[in-house]
Amino acid sequence: MSSGNFQELVAYNAERHRAVCAGFDPTLSRIPKKFHRASICGTLTGFVNPMVEALADTVGFYKPNLGFYLRFGHEGIQALERIAAHMHEHAPDVIKILDLKTGDIGATNEAYAEFAFDVCGFDAVTAHNYMGYQAMEPWLTREGKGVFVLVRTSNKGAEEFQKMGTCSTTEMGEVRSVNSEGFLFERVAANVADSNMWNQYGNVGMVAGATETSIDDLATIRRIAGDSVVILSPGVGKAQGGDAAAAFAKGSNSDGAGLAVNSSSGITHAHADEKYEGMEPDEAAAAEATNMHDTMEAVRIAA
Amino acid sequence: MSSGNFQELVAYNAERHRAVCAGFDPTLSRIPKKFHRASICGTLTGFVNPMVEALADTVGFYKPNLGFYLRFGHEGIQALERIAAHMHEHAPDVIKILDLKTGDIGATNEAYAEFAFDVCGFDAVTAHNYMGYQAMEPWLTREGKGVFVLVRTSNKGAEEFQKMGTCSTTEMGEVRSVNSEGFLFERVAANVADSNMWNQYGNVGMVAGATETSIDDLATIRRIAGDSVVILSPGVGKAQGGDAAAAFAKGSNSDGAGLAVNSSSGITHAHADEKYEGMEPDEAAAAEATNMHDTMEAVRIAA
Repeated sequence: MSSGNFQELVAYNAERHRAVCAGFDPTLSRIPKKFHRASICGTLTGFVNPMVEALADTVGFYKPNLGFYLRFGHEGIQALERIAAHMHEHAPDVIKILDLKTGDIGATNEAYAEFAFDVCGFDAVTAHNYMGYQAMEPWLTREGKGVFVLVRTSNKGAEEFQKMGTCSTTEMGEVRSVNSEGFLFERVAANVADSNMWNQYGNVGMVAGATETSIDDLATIRRIAGDSVVILSPGVGKAQGGDAAAAFAKGSNSDGAGLAVNSSSGITHAHADEKYEGMEPDEAAAAEATNMHDTMEAVRIAA
Repeated sequence: MSSGNFQELVAYNAERHRAVCAGFDPTLSRIPKKFHRASICGTLTGFVNPMVEALADTVGFYKPNLGFYLRFGHEGIQALERIAAHMHEHAPDVIKILDLKTGDIGATNEAYAEFAFDVCGFDAVTAHNYMGYQAMEPWLTREGKGVFVLVRTSNKGAEEFQKMGTCSTTEMGEVRSVNSEGFLFERVAANVADSNMWNQYGNVGMVAGATETSIDDLATIRRIAGDSVVILSPGVGKAQGGDAAAAFAKGSNSDGAGLAVNSSSGITHAHADEKYEGMEPDEAAAAEATNMHDTMEAVRIAA
């Protein structure tokens, strides 16, 4: 399947100030009855594909989450494949991220790369950091693809390890001193941004949440990341409560770009919001994405 | 799909001293030509299902890795579903682990739980730790299911974060002292074993590698984990080079149990090993698993 080049698409988005990421995570019980078909695959594609078209000129990123398709078994995966194909046909310039938040040894990561990049033609994947960058080479070395590494997540309880203090020890003769080196998430951000480690191919992004508990760390992560790394910031919308304007203010780079502010159910199920009563799901999704876009543009222009 | 109870199956395995975990990770180019069918699903099920039967009385655990099926898209997932059904039919007492190494916010973990536990009837999943235990409730609260949390992985470069030093800081008046608290993997092991955190439902396991670089940490992890936590130890076999006897010596609990020593390509593709020349793949897999079992039994009996 043909696909774009991650870095070129990032530059294209930056020029057009497209910072909205649409997380396509459909929940069956929230899909209006009239979209239901005999097969799950038919229901999911019939519901999501019109949104793909409606959002193509507004958002910079699409991000379906693997779990929301895999829950239906092979029929859900077939739907994901077809939605990915629809994205390529109708939105060649939107960056397509497969959110699978995995990370394994090299041979397994190669298998995931084949699904994400070859079968579906996604431009990027999300990745856990715990195995270290060497295991991630099958993703990092893929030319024209991007890898968004989890740095600071938006969920309750994310502090357990992410805000654990780290240290180094130095020994001089009999004296051993322990030096505080910041929180784990800061160390992860530093390694991911490092052009001798995760970023040696210049194609990493970072995931850093925009919820109330995580947003101050988003500003810290932008400082560590520098201007060239794209930050994917989830947690905006009703489900998790984050605010797009605040996310933009804390997470964008010095050019007012380099950011993907994600809303999943807030866009996918915007039609259930009373604000958009009477609208078709694709119209409501586009209205919500346009709202997010305008909110962030106001912050950018005022800065 | 009907399935067993994780804790009961662990006890059953312990009584029968079954510590071998068969990682069913088929690689298409290594599957003999005569197994190839018009559909990928036919090829994979035709190759793996006879192994499921051949290993049912030898091993304690089956562990297919999601990536090795997802690489083929929806047809691969259909094969995984059918192989899981075959496991239930032919090996009700073997613990079936879906190796997906993911970890997301709660709503997404619920989606993965539906695939792993409801669609396929697996008894356990593998999980990344980075989001913290609160996000993992959709897995941890599933009655009769288990969650194997990544603590120390077997791959090259795993030290990057796993062996990072952690610390706490205490302040007394003007004096601020930084106290070393061990490596990150030790902190992860302690939290996972904690009955007020990850292990509040008594159903966690840990993943701790058995390769040369990781095996000394396996002994440390067993000390932290205590006797009741099952440790899944990958890295044994030609591909990663770990040794089953050493893994058993370092990783088993004080009863000589509580361990799942995994070999993936070493079992799935044993037929390619000159040791087993002339054998069918299912016979070779069973011979290799029996070898691993006997090796570990010798260590157990000698202890």
